[in-house]
Amino acid sequence: MTSLIDTAPAARRSAELEQLIQQQPERFRVLTGDRPTGLLHLGHYFGTLHNRVRLQRQGVELMVIIADYQVLTDRDIAEHLQQRVEDLVLDYLAAGIDPQRATIFTHSAVTALNQLLLPFLSLVSVAELGRNPTVKDEIAHSRQNAVSGLMFTYPVHQAADILFGKANLVPVGQDQLPHLELTRTIARRFNDRYRPLFPQPDALLSPAPLLLGTDGTKMSKSRGNAILLSATADETARQIRGAKTDSQRHITYDPQDRPEVASLLLLAALCGDRDPQELAEEIGSGGAALLKKVVTEAVNEHLAPLRARRAELAADRAHLREVLRQGNAAANALAETTLAEVREAMGTHY
Amino acid sequence: MTSLIDTAPAARRSAELEQLIQQQPERFRVLTGDRPTGLLHLGHYFGTLHNRVRLQRQGVELMVIIADYQVLTDRDIAEHLQQRVEDLVLDYLAAGIDPQRATIFTHSAVTALNQLLLPFLSLVSVAELGRNPTVKDEIAHSRQNAVSGLMFTYPVHQAADILFGKANLVPVGQDQLPHLELTRTIARRFNDRYRPLFPQPDALLSPAPLLLGTDGTKMSKSRGNAILLSATADETARQIRGAKTDSQRHITYDPQDRPEVASLLLLAALCGDRDPQELAEEIGSGGAALLKKVVTEAVNEHLAPLRARRAELAADRAHLREVLRQGNAAANALAETTLAEVREAMGTHY
Repeated sequence: MTSLIDTAPAARRSAELEQLIQQQPERFRVLTGDRPTGLLHLGHYFGTLHNRVRLQRQGVELMVIIADYQVLTDRDIAEHLQQRVEDLVLDYLAAGIDPQRATIFTHSAVTALNQLLLPFLSLVSVAELGRNPTVKDEIAHSRQNAVSGLMFTYPVHQAADILFGKANLVPVGQDQLPHLELTRTIARRFNDRYRPLFPQPDALLSPAPLLLGTDGTKMSKSRGNAILLSATADETARQIRGAKTDSQRHITYDPQDRPEVASLLLLAALCGDRDPQELAEEIGSGGAALLKKVVTEAVNEHLAPLRARRAELAADRAHLREVLRQGNAAANALAETTLAEVREAMGTHY
Repeated sequence: MTSLIDTAPAARRSAELEQLIQQQPERFRVLTGDRPTGLLHLGHYFGTLHNRVRLQRQGVELMVIIADYQVLTDRDIAEHLQQRVEDLVLDYLAAGIDPQRATIFTHSAVTALNQLLLPFLSLVSVAELGRNPTVKDEIAHSRQNAVSGLMFTYPVHQAADILFGKANLVPVGQDQLPHLELTRTIARRFNDRYRPLFPQPDALLSPAPLLLGTDGTKMSKSRGNAILLSATADETARQIRGAKTDSQRHITYDPQDRPEVASLLLLAALCGDRDPQELAEEIGSGGAALLKKVVTEAVNEHLAPLRARRAELAADRAHLREVLRQGNAAANALAETTLAEVREAMGTHY
């Protein structure tokens, strides 16, 4: 999806925010999250996980929601929900999210958060929901034909996710900039109508490098073109060996005309904290074979500590469940405090 | 609203249900309720309250929801919500609903009930919501221009109201017969998809006599044409004295051609447990003056014990709040049990 909005103001604001984060990280509470659709891959890792871990290391408080209610309509996922949710927690912890300092929780466990959907629904019109870009995205990403009532109201549920904990920062990619607008609108309308209770959260525009799958299309577990965080070094090597390149022998970094080669270079560069252009020059006439060797080594080296942690964590499923239980308890306490304030503000406190 | 559906099957089913209620009242849990839009009048009383009290006296368990979230978009009401809600409890108790045997509760207080909205929303499509008669009615009855997201999803919230307590009986007027269909659909879909958990509630078609306001239009507090349960005998007399009749001196019972006179006769008949036709014959050439005298006496006599109880109850607002607190606590316990079953059934029990 290409956005038609001018992203320059958001980029400027995000640069300011990054400075503020460096100076006063304790002022920020970030809300991020995922649907528990399956094991995470390098697209997720460099797209969002890496950034979350960076923010947490800078001292920002992290709230990570696992949007389990948002996968109910996908029957394949819903039937293995517990496994999917635990796997997501596993990938989070392996990637470096510290559960001692982050709140990892599921939608379905935080009753008071879900209740906020109702007063928030009263603050938006059906027309606004119908033209919301989040809804349009949801529809595009879902595997179902009809739009469910849950999907249609998802942007309002998302507002509840963000506002229940009074998060004031939401990392987004460029295309997702409009997604936060309805949350800001709901916060503003609630504050105007009842009393000032909610911050209007800022979007933190975060670089999300576009990594293609090994077949040259969008990286996605269901297409079998994704390098999973949970893969072994051998599986990774095999997958990269089979990756699509092109017919030109000499390796150059040209995202426009050579997207598959450029994506592989970018991946190696991200893993080795290098410049993709320089990497391309080094490989040069070594061709696709050398490129793939370099990428494989870079990925496996970068992921080695993550995978070692992951293997350790995977052996103790009870610990994963405990992390979730504690996260859910913390999220519930927060949500109940906010719901009590909302009841007071709305006069539904009998 | 005139319904185009064939009501004969529902009428037959309701007759069967009435027999079952007589034989085994303990098999039934009824869900009814109101929006807290203001003081109740004789239209409400003979339309629904009377029937609720009858069912309770027969031994049926009563759940009475005060739909406070559904009046949020009406600013006039929302600003005096506590008063409105307490007044509704007061009218309920005055009318004879026994809080020892009924659960009177508010939407906003029952968090686990509200959470059910989310899984239920996943079971219906936006198209189904758009053509739902409840939504169409809501739009027609609301004083707002735009349809809010809350109003649009109201039939699903209603399903949560009914199903959270596994109510199996919902008294409705003839026009409201289709309203229960979405609840039945949601119950069926949930049961098919996860596991059998919810009853498909039956509509209990209940006679709701059409009482007009004293100006000959629909009785409504906001039109000033309603005889309030809370009115004094003098206020009632004054209101009936000013009631619209027609230019024919001789009183006859002719709902088709003499709706105002017929409505007054019906009101006196309902209050005195008489036949409106007979009453008309007795009044005959006494004309409108005698008619109004008869109506005034019948209404004031019928309401006298209710009004005496009401005055007593009104002196103790703390008691009303206590009734609500206890009802909310009971509804919460029930909702939490059901939500735990729902989580178990859906596999969102981590």
